[in-house]
Amino acid sequence: MSTKKIYHKKDKRRPSKTGLPPGTHVYTGRNLSPISELEVYVYSPEACTHFQPTLKELLELDTTKSMWININGISNIETIRSICDKFGVHYLYQEDILNVFQRPKVEEENNYIYATFKSLEWNETANELEEEQISVILSESTVITFQEKPGDSYDILRDKLKAENSILRERQVDYLFYRILDITVDTYFDILEKMGDYLEKIENEVLALPDGELLIKIQNNKKDIMQVRKNIYPMRDMLNKMIMSEHEMIDEKTKKYFKDILDHTIQILDTVETYRDLNMSLKDVYLNAVSHEMNRIMKILTIISTFFIPLTFIVGVYGMNFDRMPELRWEYGYYMVWAIMISIVIFLLYWFKRKGWF
Amino acid sequence: MSTKKIYHKKDKRRPSKTGLPPGTHVYTGRNLSPISELEVYVYSPEACTHFQPTLKELLELDTTKSMWININGISNIETIRSICDKFGVHYLYQEDILNVFQRPKVEEENNYIYATFKSLEWNETANELEEEQISVILSESTVITFQEKPGDSYDILRDKLKAENSILRERQVDYLFYRILDITVDTYFDILEKMGDYLEKIENEVLALPDGELLIKIQNNKKDIMQVRKNIYPMRDMLNKMIMSEHEMIDEKTKKYFKDILDHTIQILDTVETYRDLNMSLKDVYLNAVSHEMNRIMKILTIISTFFIPLTFIVGVYGMNFDRMPELRWEYGYYMVWAIMISIVIFLLYWFKRKGWF
Amino acid sequence: MSTKKIYHKKDKRRPSKTGLPPGTHVYTGRNLSPISELEVYVYSPEACTHFQPTLKELLELDTTKSMWININGISNIETIRSICDKFGVHYLYQEDILNVFQRPKVEEENNYIYATFKSLEWNETANELEEEQISVILSESTVITFQEKPGDSYDILRDKLKAENSILRERQVDYLFYRILDITVDTYFDILEKMGDYLEKIENEVLALPDGELLIKIQNNKKDIMQVRKNIYPMRDMLNKMIMSEHEMIDEKTKKYFKDILDHTIQILDTVETYRDLNMSLKDVYLNAVSHEMNRIMKILTIISTFFIPLTFIVGVYGMNFDRMPELRWEYGYYMVWAIMISIVIFLLYWFKRKGWF
Amino acid sequence: MSTKKIYHKKDKRRPSKTGLPPGTHVYTGRNLSPISELEVYVYSPEACTHFQPTLKELLELDTTKSMWININGISNIETIRSICDKFGVHYLYQEDILNVFQRPKVEEENNYIYATFKSLEWNETANELEEEQISVILSESTVITFQEKPGDSYDILRDKLKAENSILRERQVDYLFYRILDITVDTYFDILEKMGDYLEKIENEVLALPDGELLIKIQNNKKDIMQVRKNIYPMRDMLNKMIMSEHEMIDEKTKKYFKDILDHTIQILDTVETYRDLNMSLKDVYLNAVSHEMNRIMKILTIISTFFIPLTFIVGVYGMNFDRMPELRWEYGYYMVWAIMISIVIFLLYWFKRKGWF
Amino acid sequence: MSTKKIYHKKDKRRPSKTGLPPGTHVYTGRNLSPISELEVYVYSPEACTHFQPTLKELLELDTTKSMWININGISNIETIRSICDKFGVHYLYQEDILNVFQRPKVEEENNYIYATFKSLEWNETANELEEEQISVILSESTVITFQEKPGDSYDILRDKLKAENSILRERQVDYLFYRILDITVDTYFDILEKMGDYLEKIENEVLALPDGELLIKIQNNKKDIMQVRKNIYPMRDMLNKMIMSEHEMIDEKTKKYFKDILDHTIQILDTVETYRDLNMSLKDVYLNAVSHEMNRIMKILTIISTFFIPLTFIVGVYGMNFDRMPELRWEYGYYMVWAIMISIVIFLLYWFKRKGWF
Repeated sequence: MSTKKIYHKKDKRRPSKTGLPPGTHVYTGRNLSPISELEVYVYSPEACTHFQPTLKELLELDTTKSMWININGISNIETIRSICDKFGVHYLYQEDILNVFQRPKVEEENNYIYATFKSLEWNETANELEEEQISVILSESTVITFQEKPGDSYDILRDKLKAENSILRERQVDYLFYRILDITVDTYFDILEKMGDYLEKIENEVLALPDGELLIKIQNNKKDIMQVRKNIYPMRDMLNKMIMSEHEMIDEKTKKYFKDILDHTIQILDTVETYRDLNMSLKDVYLNAVSHEMNRIMKILTIISTFFIPLTFIVGVYGMNFDRMPELRWEYGYYMVWAIMISIVIFLLYWFKRKGWF
Repeated sequence: MSTKKIYHKKDKRRPSKTGLPPGTHVYTGRNLSPISELEVYVYSPEACTHFQPTLKELLELDTTKSMWININGISNIETIRSICDKFGVHYLYQEDILNVFQRPKVEEENNYIYATFKSLEWNETANELEEEQISVILSESTVITFQEKPGDSYDILRDKLKAENSILRERQVDYLFYRILDITVDTYFDILEKMGDYLEKIENEVLALPDGELLIKIQNNKKDIMQVRKNIYPMRDMLNKMIMSEHEMIDEKTKKYFKDILDHTIQILDTVETYRDLNMSLKDVYLNAVSHEMNRIMKILTIISTFFIPLTFIVGVYGMNFDRMPELRWEYGYYMVWAIMISIVIFLLYWFKRKGWF
Repeated sequence: MSTKKIYHKKDKRRPSKTGLPPGTHVYTGRNLSPISELEVYVYSPEACTHFQPTLKELLELDTTKSMWININGISNIETIRSICDKFGVHYLYQEDILNVFQRPKVEEENNYIYATFKSLEWNETANELEEEQISVILSESTVITFQEKPGDSYDILRDKLKAENSILRERQVDYLFYRILDITVDTYFDILEKMGDYLEKIENEVLALPDGELLIKIQNNKKDIMQVRKNIYPMRDMLNKMIMSEHEMIDEKTKKYFKDILDHTIQILDTVETYRDLNMSLKDVYLNAVSHEMNRIMKILTIISTFFIPLTFIVGVYGMNFDRMPELRWEYGYYMVWAIMISIVIFLLYWFKRKGWF
Repeated sequence: MSTKKIYHKKDKRRPSKTGLPPGTHVYTGRNLSPISELEVYVYSPEACTHFQPTLKELLELDTTKSMWININGISNIETIRSICDKFGVHYLYQEDILNVFQRPKVEEENNYIYATFKSLEWNETANELEEEQISVILSESTVITFQEKPGDSYDILRDKLKAENSILRERQVDYLFYRILDITVDTYFDILEKMGDYLEKIENEVLALPDGELLIKIQNNKKDIMQVRKNIYPMRDMLNKMIMSEHEMIDEKTKKYFKDILDHTIQILDTVETYRDLNMSLKDVYLNAVSHEMNRIMKILTIISTFFIPLTFIVGVYGMNFDRMPELRWEYGYYMVWAIMISIVIFLLYWFKRKGWF
Repeated sequence: MSTKKIYHKKDKRRPSKTGLPPGTHVYTGRNLSPISELEVYVYSPEACTHFQPTLKELLELDTTKSMWININGISNIETIRSICDKFGVHYLYQEDILNVFQRPKVEEENNYIYATFKSLEWNETANELEEEQISVILSESTVITFQEKPGDSYDILRDKLKAENSILRERQVDYLFYRILDITVDTYFDILEKMGDYLEKIENEVLALPDGELLIKIQNNKKDIMQVRKNIYPMRDMLNKMIMSEHEMIDEKTKKYFKDILDHTIQILDTVETYRDLNMSLKDVYLNAVSHEMNRIMKILTIISTFFIPLTFIVGVYGMNFDRMPELRWEYGYYMVWAIMISIVIFLLYWFKRKGWF
């Protein structure tokens, strides 16, 4: 698992931003495709039209019908600005859409609601937890989503919009907005499941054969857990704010659904906190395994020393060259020494046995 | 003790749920008996009828009398849905009944109250803490309970319902609802007692003979404690909400009883936090025992080395082959060497004694 | 110090309680004397009568005069029930009086106030912190106290009631109630003092001669600290509730006194938290002492090895049996070797000196 | 630094207090000078009279003029009681003045305000942090201060009162009260500075030469930090209460000054928390230093063993007495052995060098 | 990284302040340039005049036009006092401007707002985190900034003020005030980025070659993190206060901008807490690396001892001088011994291999 995202990194192009007046738009992410993909779904209970307009066509769209405008790729600042201007989005929010280091939040304005949150994905290739910032503008009859790059988990929505008799088409756009949030939060469960598996895997490794890499894995795991936590915590406040909202664009009936997402969010938080705690104590299990290994090494050394040091002393005694050493002259002296040494070994074997060292 | 429940696991069949619109019912538990057992108690102060209807009979029941409908087994989605529809339960709650990963909560609607919580049981066979999700619908004159599998702790209620002059039959269904909650919370005390015994057992083991398995036991114990904690914490909020409730279906007199359960819940929380803390410090006691063991091993090694290394040097001296070594020629040289060596041993014995090593 | 109270233990007779309807009275404590001692003080500013009625006499007492009824021993359920019934105490509170695992709390009813808290005592014989649950019913003109066993710290109250001109007799019963609480909280200070002494004693032992028992003492000390903490924390809420109370039976003037107890309670909490923290860091001091001991052992081993291993090598060299070893033939070869060895010893002595090992 | 104050100690004479009715005055401090020093400053913008009255003169003083009455020494209970009675101070506060274990607090009564807090002083002789309890009664035109012993930091106030044109004389007594509090809080900064120096000193010692005393110093340091923390935390609440106060005796203009002290208090708290945290991690730095020392010792042992154990084996080989050992007969056998041994040493030197052990 | 700022240090000249009445101005910083640099920007949407007045000229300025007065160097007390007096700044705030140990705060007065906060800068030369206290007075048409020393990050504002058509010139002075705060908070991001790099660098070092200096680096890193934290935490309260403010001088439109800074502040706090946590666990990774090193050393010692101690015993046996030792007389005895010893070595090699030690 990667350690890259956890450290706050300004992109190469970001430093120029310090000191700029607010409203100077700078994109701070890493997906620099110059062209934004535009996608529009105009829908009513009866029908749904799907097309990919040019920017010009988009800006001239009639916005009185229910529609979902999705923009993939936000590095082209001019495109973002002109779309936002069309919908009257304050330039501070335009700046927030471009700056991918936003904390999840929701802001209510007179004729639109601005929300931003993160979609998490596990990049199997890079073995990395990838964050993508999703910004949503909810206005009277339009939902606009800004994504950093193509590819998302919303295909189910596209299918539903095209399908006959789907609830999605029958309801107002606030229900579409809810569905986008709901799917995003659902992706967190997938991440949690991966983390659970990984934690279980490390736990088994710790017990099997502790090596020095493990603590680094635990440390990196911690960073991933903290990254999820950092993104999900503010979502709780965000959802609470929407449930409490008295904005006319949020229907009372839709609030029940937001409450449902809030429940999921709290459940994710519970699990994240549990994982955090377990990861912490995994470290202790690991350190204990290391110290056990140490004990085992020391035991081997001690057993070997305890056996041979006295024996070596005895043979040393009879290696002395004194003229008068009666034992040396005895006929069975040599066998006597062996007898003594074997007795010592037997005694020690018995002693270690009783101490439970074997 | 098992480690399985603590990691968030989606059931095999669950992944298909991500992206599904809310209201698409998927059962996420592990008890897949296709048929739900239905059980109905219709009661009044005077009498109580008990029967096990078919689904069809159940759906045609007259619901104006006080009754308790208990459903064991929720994997048959159609059954659950039709029962819920009969009582007008919102499809978000239908989803919650089926999804066994709910956080305990209570939700008030106009003509019913939805509550969900966990019943804990210690499975002696699998040596595992088993969670069963209980969902309750409390409507004007009916209590419906949904359980994952047959077998529960509510037999006492069944007896009381059948018994003459029981308070249960005299009161409204909110009292029955209270009794279900009360019994569920009481099962937590049994779990706590088992945990207390287990903690005491580990504590004794730690002091007797520390081995490497112990830290894993402590770690698993922690997971069990955290599982209880995770389930009991939201119950406090749930009960507070019911005590504060102004719903007409909750009688003022019944609130005093909910307050009583709340007191129990807080008491359980206190004990859980205490256990958590004690479990934590058990780890320290254990690690200390390990490090003491280490010290003891090192002492043995040091004592043996300290005795024999100097002696081995001395005998080495007189193993040298110099032509002129006067001591070798002395008549009592050999005995002299023994005398010196015995003096050294006596001195060392005295020295170690004074240091308190024996 | 004992470890018994900290683990939640149901008494042998308690299991039967799970599933019983509320109001089924079961005594859960350990003091099973079948007869309750009854004691009544009827007092007015002018006089005080003291007598020990039978249960029957007590139940027929005229309760319009100020009086204190004290009951020692609550294992006789019938006695408790009939007394409570006489004063109209709700059966949930009757249950609480009998169940000695209550969290300290106060509950206000129309014509009485129910309070329960713990009195702590240091049992010198069993070396154990003993909890006794005190339940108090404060009604218009009566204070009823239920104690688990005879013997308490309220003798001073008995003396004051009998004494002429005591404030106690001049005031309403709420003042008597305050005095009971005040004395109970004062006993906590005695426990704290004992704990302070014990902590200081352990601290000194840790520095003197660390042995393996010490960590267990620290662990047990922690349990005692946690037990006090668990009992005193809810008392803060309880006192706050009484100060905020608008119950007509609590005089405004008496509230100032409750405020005084609250101050004491907070002071006790401060001290308990400080002790908890100190106890925690005592563990570190201890573990450090152990690791220092280890270092010292290793130093001895290293010094001895460093001195003798090279010397043993040298004498080994001249123990070789080569035909041609010129040194062996030198007249002063043997003395030369001694000279070399002594030089080495001197050099090592100097070296260790400079490293500060001696 | 001393460890005495942190443990809650009842003075020898205190035990008699448990069970006494409130209002029974017992002095709990250690400064037992039988006579209280009385000091009075009567001041107006035009003049200030300073004199040391007897108790009798004090009790007969006309209290309509602005004045500061300072009492040094509170062990004479009668003196304190009669002064308090003159100003109508409630007997619970009289008790608080005498009991030097009060938590800092402020209490508002109809015609006076009672405040108590601690003045801290570093006793260089005893190397001890000394607490002195200051109690203040602020009434319409009088400030009365009770100090445990002579000697304080308020000399600057005495000078100001005597000086012409000082703001102190022009303002009401609430300003004098503020000034007393302000100076007291300022003394905490001096203590903090001493602690900062001490922490820095320990930090340097830890890095230089870790010895066993250091952890005890860190532990004692912690106690001092906790003592300051314990005294300053309630002062924040106390000041907040005074700022929020609507008591007529606290002028709106003076509140701005209390706000200023509050800022200082929060700053002190910030620093204390920082010190606490740093002190904690100093322990880790220390324990690391100890474990490094251990590593170094083990390295020396290992290096020496690794060099000499193989060499000793080689010389042992040629110390064997077999009749047929060709090497022993070779002319250059002995030199060969030396060559082999020197090669081994060179190889090991190179090996250790590469491992970075030298 | 330096450890200097974290300990509360009174400047040499500060002690004289204890006991002084409030309003006695003492500068507590370290930048003692006797002359303050004065700089004035008078601006309107149409034009902007920039000049550097003398103190006398400044005091005679007409303050009805929008203007920014910047003062570099606050050690000349008289200058500060006379400027503050001109704008009616309360003398407690004058004191705060001079005392560079202020906690960031904002205070609203009738006709001006006083704010103080810290600007952080990484001093590459001294390798030190440098704090500079910025005090701002915002009055009807004037922003006055007090800086400790020349050089700041506000050059972008100076450029904007001089530029045609800049928003800055079109808006009221509260917008200028916002811009100053915004730029200051932006400098924190730069510090965070440096810290992130440093943490990553230490993390890599820990894994590569742990040496004793590393824990000191981690400890110093902690101090830096705590210093940022200490300065940014109160800024959150400060910004919240300004957003909630109903002061007429803060325009409703400007509040949206303060909200934006608040978002940044919370983001910084999130990152700081994450760094704090990571820094903490880096210590564990480090201590683990040290203990691994220890294990490795012990393994080497054990392997060497295990190989050579038995061999040395064997050669010792045949170094004995018994008259009758049959093996010594055998023709191939010597080779036999070598065969036995080589067998032992092979066996041990195999054994260690299987244990995974090589």
